[in-house]
This record gives sequence, structure tokens and C-alpha cells, in this order.
Amino acid sequence: MKKAQILLHCPDQPGIITQVTNFITVNKGNIVYLDQYVDNEEKIFFMRLEWELDNFLIPADKIAEYFDTLYAKKYNMTFRVYFSDVKPRMAIFVSKMSHCLYDMLSRYTAGEWCADIPLIISNHPDMGDVAKSFGIPYYIFPITKDNKTEMEAKEMALLKENNIDFIVLARYMQVISENMIESYPNRIINIHHSFLPAFIGAKPYQAAYQRGVKIIGATSHYVTTELDAGPIIEQDVERITHKDSVNELVRKGRDLEKIVLSRAVRKHIEHKVLVYRNKTIIFN
Amino acid sequence: MKKAQILLHCPDQPGIITQVTNFITVNKGNIVYLDQYVDNEEKIFFMRLEWELDNFLIPADKIAEYFDTLYAKKYNMTFRVYFSDVKPRMAIFVSKMSHCLYDMLSRYTAGEWCADIPLIISNHPDMGDVAKSFGIPYYIFPITKDNKTEMEAKEMALLKENNIDFIVLARYMQVISENMIESYPNRIINIHHSFLPAFIGAKPYQAAYQRGVKIIGATSHYVTTELDAGPIIEQDVERITHKDSVNELVRKGRDLEKIVLSRAVRKHIEHKVLVYRNKTIIFN
Amino acid sequence: MKKAQILLHCPDQPGIITQVTNFITVNKGNIVYLDQYVDNEEKIFFMRLEWELDNFLIPADKIAEYFDTLYAKKYNMTFRVYFSDVKPRMAIFVSKMSHCLYDMLSRYTAGEWCADIPLIISNHPDMGDVAKSFGIPYYIFPITKDNKTEMEAKEMALLKENNIDFIVLARYMQVISENMIESYPNRIINIHHSFLPAFIGAKPYQAAYQRGVKIIGATSHYVTTELDAGPIIEQDVERITHKDSVNELVRKGRDLEKIVLSRAVRKHIEHKVLVYRNKTIIFN
Amino acid sequence: MKKAQILLHCPDQPGIITQVTNFITVNKGNIVYLDQYVDNEEKIFFMRLEWELDNFLIPADKIAEYFDTLYAKKYNMTFRVYFSDVKPRMAIFVSKMSHCLYDMLSRYTAGEWCADIPLIISNHPDMGDVAKSFGIPYYIFPITKDNKTEMEAKEMALLKENNIDFIVLARYMQVISENMIESYPNRIINIHHSFLPAFIGAKPYQAAYQRGVKIIGATSHYVTTELDAGPIIEQDVERITHKDSVNELVRKGRDLEKIVLSRAVRKHIEHKVLVYRNKTIIFN
Repeated sequence: MKKAQILLHCPDQPGIITQVTNFITVNKGNIVYLDQYVDNEEKIFFMRLEWELDNFLIPADKIAEYFDTLYAKKYNMTFRVYFSDVKPRMAIFVSKMSHCLYDMLSRYTAGEWCADIPLIISNHPDMGDVAKSFGIPYYIFPITKDNKTEMEAKEMALLKENNIDFIVLARYMQVISENMIESYPNRIINIHHSFLPAFIGAKPYQAAYQRGVKIIGATSHYVTTELDAGPIIEQDVERITHKDSVNELVRKGRDLEKIVLSRAVRKHIEHKVLVYRNKTIIFN
Repeated sequence: MKKAQILLHCPDQPGIITQVTNFITVNKGNIVYLDQYVDNEEKIFFMRLEWELDNFLIPADKIAEYFDTLYAKKYNMTFRVYFSDVKPRMAIFVSKMSHCLYDMLSRYTAGEWCADIPLIISNHPDMGDVAKSFGIPYYIFPITKDNKTEMEAKEMALLKENNIDFIVLARYMQVISENMIESYPNRIINIHHSFLPAFIGAKPYQAAYQRGVKIIGATSHYVTTELDAGPIIEQDVERITHKDSVNELVRKGRDLEKIVLSRAVRKHIEHKVLVYRNKTIIFN
Repeated sequence: MKKAQILLHCPDQPGIITQVTNFITVNKGNIVYLDQYVDNEEKIFFMRLEWELDNFLIPADKIAEYFDTLYAKKYNMTFRVYFSDVKPRMAIFVSKMSHCLYDMLSRYTAGEWCADIPLIISNHPDMGDVAKSFGIPYYIFPITKDNKTEMEAKEMALLKENNIDFIVLARYMQVISENMIESYPNRIINIHHSFLPAFIGAKPYQAAYQRGVKIIGATSHYVTTELDAGPIIEQDVERITHKDSVNELVRKGRDLEKIVLSRAVRKHIEHKVLVYRNKTIIFN
Repeated sequence: MKKAQILLHCPDQPGIITQVTNFITVNKGNIVYLDQYVDNEEKIFFMRLEWELDNFLIPADKIAEYFDTLYAKKYNMTFRVYFSDVKPRMAIFVSKMSHCLYDMLSRYTAGEWCADIPLIISNHPDMGDVAKSFGIPYYIFPITKDNKTEMEAKEMALLKENNIDFIVLARYMQVISENMIESYPNRIINIHHSFLPAFIGAKPYQAAYQRGVKIIGATSHYVTTELDAGPIIEQDVERITHKDSVNELVRKGRDLEKIVLSRAVRKHIEHKVLVYRNKTIIFN
């Protein structure tokens, strides 16, 4: 059954839940999901609502307009409407490591994700065979310091051509330029191989080893122009001991990275992530 | 600011959220918490709602009556209303082990729990000094097979006299009789020293050691007449290795037991647990 | 550099470590790993030892014989010697689910495991394409109640022909017969989709949902003739809530299953698992 | 039965384990624990050894001397010998928060720790009653910026007088001076309320909230002259969500802090921590 989802936030005030749920109900929509949250420091109200469209009186393509007119302007809301029958289109960026790529593609192939993956982009040829074995087009852009602007322009043209909604950096070892980041605000998902904000930047496992931590982590976040500082979507950790060499940390970390990244991607696909001021609200 | 909390469940149908939130809003209550859940197998709707009473038009002592008349009968709801200024009164039952007792009393003394603990009951004198150091009356009922009915009758009289709302078994090593359990339905909280339903009954650490599990656990649940089979409130686990003797499991398990029990007690105190057919809905 | 590994156990008595380490050292081996453990209930001594063979005076193919003569008979030891340049050969058994298979093959392809996988066996054709994309021969044995003995005989002939050392059941949905189990004692690794010994048998996620547990798990163990009761190699868990339907448990469980199974397989490949009386000693 | 424990490290070379275990065995000691570790980057060998002294030929008070003469000089070892019948003496420093203090004292009272706690020191009177209820002398040193040198001198005199071996800072809100730190090298244990090295310094929960992390942590470490940068003994973490306010993080963090600190203290008491270049080797 086709459903609509709405994610919204606005300055908090009494009566919003009542108004919005009333809007759904009087128009004969059946609410199947509601979660709300009030940030009591910033006095902001957040909500995710999902309802069945079968008998809904307002046509799907008019919902956003009506909602805007009737509620969003009144409450100064920021909102987005999604539909369950529209699959988000994702592009994967990868370099030489295969673990995150395999993890995502095996979920995709098994039908675990309601999304399309029309293409994989890389700065190296190494993962081409993997892409091929899953039947996904693989494009190589051998980015160097000198050709970066030009290469990214080509990548962005390709993304546009394929109607890509969001990008997943599956251990992609190139820094994305500001221009590209700003074209996909809160729509580029990265996996950083540390428990952020510890060990920002390169070689976090080396740094974790040097510091002698007893637990390592991985962090999936939206990419912003500040390195490893974007809104965190998901994190997880694993216990280690002094016996683990840097190589062992790298190996154990791979399992964290792939699971954490795939969890974050799923949340994004399901429209359960709302970003506000560099933090995420994750609806469950 | 005084708040009301309502926990309810009823057969699912469209419009309930809208109706109930509307009831709060039109009567000038400000909703500060709403969480709902639909059990799609049983087709049951569950909700927890919290609102500020400052300008609420219906007097606090009339809320339950009005809600019953206007909504509960209509939707065939089961519901309870709580108020933030009414502290639940809890009794602790303890035997000879101190770890759960200390954990709870140190939280209580630090003001972590919105509850009163007017008394501690035991079948042994051992914990009397601990109770005394926290200034809480300690009653000893040396239960034996022969005097159990009589002793429990006395305990229940004492509980009634002290207006006890719920009981926490802090590693209390006596089986509670059916009669007493039925007097406190879903209001007796136990901590079992295993990851239920594994290792039901006596000596779970011994059993875990024999089976060679790699993880041990603890489970807090409401007591029902079937041993260790009541609705689970909270569980947690800890990794172990073959090097851990039974004594080590007992030692590591104590940390699990005290943390898991105290988390469950907190959830109960905050009226965030709803029981339906031997399972719990835990609102967050 | 080529290394030898020895795993041994024997009745505990003073001086064993000294004797055995002395044997390595006087023969010019350099010990690079030593871990030992004494089961104080059973009074059994366990040890894993690894040393570099470069200047070792005893030829590799004579080590077992010498060790047997000099120490094993004297101390009543059970022991096995392994060499770092001999890759164990593993067969994967799979049915229709792909998550464990992909996880293992992606590690294998990435060179994460020091093992060979010469073949995959299934009772269904579904995973044939996956096997093919990794270049591994795939054999289908459509086992039914009636042809089981015959089919297993053919499987075992195939395993023998391929010099298979151990078998991994990657969510293989057929019960292995006693005859086959006894041919591979402690060399068939299964993944059970629950936190054993809770929820033995079929449909553990359904059972977990019914019981209302707050944590689900997965267990990798060696297969014995008693169902889901063999020596546990590895377990892990994941927190769930009342909001998780059975389907959600199945989905979350898949991540547990694949990680837990792959960790167990790795331990087995590295000769870090020693079985004694239905329990494992896992060296780290 | 009285046991000796030795912790040692030295430049790695072949034969050390054999030599040292031989020393114990030929002198009729029974080894009951041996764990070793080689840091392959620094080429350093670490070992912890424990043996029964019943028939040991060398008198307990001569062991260190003999070991030094026979092995330590030869291998350029750093080592320490401990005896199971000598209880380490610990001092607790506390300010106004009770959760770590209660956790430690309840373990101490229950006989969980083989240690003596002859005194508690504070810069505030608040915890005096808690100390009293456990029968432990409580000394108040109201440190200010102006009197710090003088006050610490008095504290150190008191510690010396009481033969204190190590100090535990149980959420003690004063920075210890360099002078005092250097008097107790790797013998002052602190609990920091974050997952170090993230959120060093004051108000880590506030910082964690601002960053929007999905997991919080606590870290127990030895105090060095660089703030929150000493060798890490133990860490643990807890999952949080966007719904957790700073106050909730503080509350959830308390459970982490007390458990992590008490685990670290236990490891120290059991002589299972060896510090090398700002990192710990934790024997299990």
C-alpha cells in the first residue's frame, strides 16, 4: 500500500501534533507511524509521520502544496514529503578497498534496501570486477591534484544525468571539493574509521594504537566542508587489547566500518534522518 | 511544573492519536511527550502521552473520569493516569547479597529516583546495617517452608500499611507465593542472573559455565506465577572467556545484575513500562 | 617466515611449560606466541605455542614424532602440530540465503583468510551465480528425506576428493546426519541464529519475539549429534526493542550471523580453537 | 596458598620464557599463571608470571634479589615482585559526587577487593557521612588556588604516614600538581567522563551533546602531567540518541564511570597492569 512520509521541524509551540495529525485524519489518511522530539535547548519541534494514501482525499502530487499552505507557513516549518513507491537513487564512490562495497552490494542484491544503485564511481580500476559481477556500471575518474576540478565536473554531470539523490563514500580516499559537497547538502554519506571526534583525519588506526585506547570505533556522517566534522548518523565500537597490532585494528575495524556504513545508508534510504545544525535526529 | 502522564492501549483504528492529542490541546494542555506504537500482529495501539497541567482546564482529579467517558469507552481502551508530583512508593526485598541493594540505595540517596523507599524486607538479618546506614527501616521475616503463608501475610500487611506501590526483589532468594504475586500484578520487579530464557532457575552461572557460553547476561522482569517467565523489562550482557571460572562469572555478573535491575526500576518509576500479554512496551 | 603451531592439553602438573618451552629453545626455535590455561575444576592444562622454524634443528616433518616421544607420552598429552604454510581447505554448505556466503567470500577474495575454498555445496541452485562470480565450483545435492543417505555419501566423496579439512554451514537448512558429523569431529562449523542455549531449534527469531527479549544473538558452534548443543566458538548480540517485528529481528540478525560466523571461521583457520568436553578454549 | 607474582619487560630475544619458567620450576615453584606479549614494533617482551610459594626454595624476601642477579641484569629487565598476602593500600580522593565512591566502598565492604582503604581525602565535606557509614576516616583539605602547595604537602604527608600505595580519584574535581603526580608515578588512577581522546578537559558531556555523538564513554587512566593523556587502563561506552539531553548523558555516564573506574582499580590491585611508554599492557 502506498504511503507518504513527512519529516518536519519548526519552532516549538503547543498544538502542532494535534493540528498535523488532524490534517491527516480528516482527509482520511491512516497514520501508521508517528515519532516526535522537542529540542528543549533550541525550542525546536521535530516530527516524522507516515500514513497510508489509499483513501487520502488530497492527491499525492498536491500534498506538499497543501501542507505548505495550511501548516508550514503558519508554523514556520521546514518539511519534506516522501513517497514509499519512489526509490532513492544512490551512487557509490569507492577506491581500492572492497569490504564496504561488498557489504552494500550484497544487501542491495538481496533486496534489503528500497533503493536503486545505477552506478559506481572510482578513482582506481581495482573494484571494476566487483561492480561488474553485480551488474552495475563502473566509471573511473583518475583524480589528481591537477585535474580535480575538471574530473569532479564530469562526475557531477554523470550524477545529474543518472538522477542521483545521494552519494555513499565507501572508503573513498579522495577529499570531496566544497563545490560538490554544497551540491549534495546532507546527501553525501561517509564512513570514517574512528570513533569521532577522536582521531580525525588520516591514519586513525595508527593514532588509536599510539594512544593505547581499549576500544576502537567507526562513524558514519554526512560530509560537510569541515573534515570529519559533519552530522553523525551512526557509530559503533569494538573492544581491543594491547595485543592488537595496527594491522589487527585495521582488520577488526573493517567489520565495524561496513556494518556502521550500511546501517547509516539504510536510515537515509528510509527517510529516518533529519539534520538540524550539524546534528542528526534519527527516527526509529 | 506539574505534569500528567497517560499510558493506554486499545484495538487499533484510525484517528486515535488525533482524538487524544486534540483532547489535550483544546483543554489547553501542552504536550511535552508522545510516543506510540502499533503491534501489527495483534492490531493493538499503545501510547504514552505527557502534558503540562498549568493551564489545563480539567482538574487533575477529574482527568481519569473525563478521559474514560470521552475516549476510553469509545475505543475500548485500558489506560492509567499518573501525575509527576506523586512519588511511587517502593519496597525492597533482599537476602544476603549487597550489590543490588547498595546500587539502588546510593541512587536513591543521590536523588536519582523520583520515588520513596519506606522500608526494606529480608529473610535474613545480614543487610540490616546497610539499611540502617541509609536510614531505612529494615524488617526481618525468617521465612521457612512451614511458616511461609503466615510470614507472607505479615509482609503483605506491612506493605499495605506503608502504601507500597511496587516491590523490587534485589537478589531475594525466596520464591514469592502466587497469592502475593497476584496482589501486585506487574508490580514486582525481579533480577535474574542470566540472559533469559537461557538458564532459568537456580545456579545460572554454573549452568553458563558448563555450557561454555561466550557471553553472560542478566534479566530484569516482572514476576508472574511461572518461574522466570514474566515480562522482560531490561537485559544486558557481558563478554566472557574460557578463562573465567564460575566465581569470575558470579563476580562479573554482579555488575550486570545491579545495573540492569536499576535501569528496570527507573523505567517503572517513570511510568515508561506498559505490559501487554507477557511482553513489555518500553517507552523512551 | 615459516612457523609451527602446537595445540595441546594434558592432566595438569608442575613443569610442563618449562619443559615444552625448553624443547623449542634448545633446538633453536624462536617462540613468538605462547598462551596457556589451566582448567582448575578438571585439572587440565591447555597450551598454544607458535615458533619460527628458520633455524629449528628438527625437520618440520619430524616435529610431531619427536614431540610425541619426548613429551606427549610422558605427560599423557593430546596434541596437534600445524604449519603456517599449509592452508586449511574449507567447504561451504549453503541453502538459499546469501548474507553469510557473501561475507565469507568477500573476505576470502580480499585475502583476509589463510585458507582455500575449493568448493561450495548446496541443496538448492539459488546461490550458484554468487559462487560463479567468485570463481568457485558449486555443487547441488537436492536432498530429500528419501535420498539423504545416498546424497550425503556423494557429498562426502566429493569432500574427500577435494581434501577438505573442515566444513562451514552458512545458514545451510539441512540437518547433517550422524555419520557425516562423526567423519568431521569438531570440524563442522554452524551458525545458529539465536543466543544459545536460548531458542534451540527452528524459528528462533519468532521465539525471541514471542518471549519479548530485549537482546537477540547469534552463536557459532561445532556441530555435534545433539541439535544446537555443540561446543560454542563465538557469540554476539544486538539490542532490540518492542518495536522490532519478527521481520526486523530477521534483518538485524543477519548482520549478527555473518559477523559471528566469520569470526568463528577465522579462529578455526588460525588454529586458535581447542575443544575439550563440549567446550572451547579460544586462544587470542 | 601464598603466591608470588612477577611483572617484567625487557628487549625481546629468544629464550626468555624458557629461562624464567625454568628458574621457577627448578626451585620447586608451581606456575599457576603465565601470560606474555611481544610488542613487535618496539621489540619489547612483557610477561606476568604467578607461582605458588609453598615449596619454593628461595625465601620470599630474597626472590627479587636472586631474580635481579640471575636474569634481570642479563636481559636488561625492568621487573617487580608482588606477594598475594600483601594487600595494596589505597586512598580515595573525592569531591561532591557519590556514585563512584559508593560503588567502590560497596565492593570493598563486600570483600570483593584484596586491598585496604585506610582513608578518604576530599576538598569538600559532602561525602563525610558516606565515609563514616563505611567506617573509613575522612580528611578534608579545602584546596584553593592560593593554598594548593601547602594543602598538597599536608595530603602527601598523610598519605605517607598511612603507607598509601596508590590513589584513586573518584570524580575528584581538582587538578593534581606535578609534584604529587611524580611522587606516585602510574599509581594515581583517574576516571574521565568521556571516551578519550575525545572530549579532553572540562564538561565532556556538554561537548558530546554539542557534537551529536551516538555513543558516550568513560575512560580510566593513570594520571600524568599532561591533562587526560595518561596511559589508559579501561574504557567502556553506552549508546545514546538525539533524545538524550545533557542531563541524561550525565546520568547515563555515571553508570559508565563507576563501572569503568572499579574495573581499572581491580586490575591495578591484582597487579595485572604494566605501563610502558604511556600505554598499558593489561594481563587477564
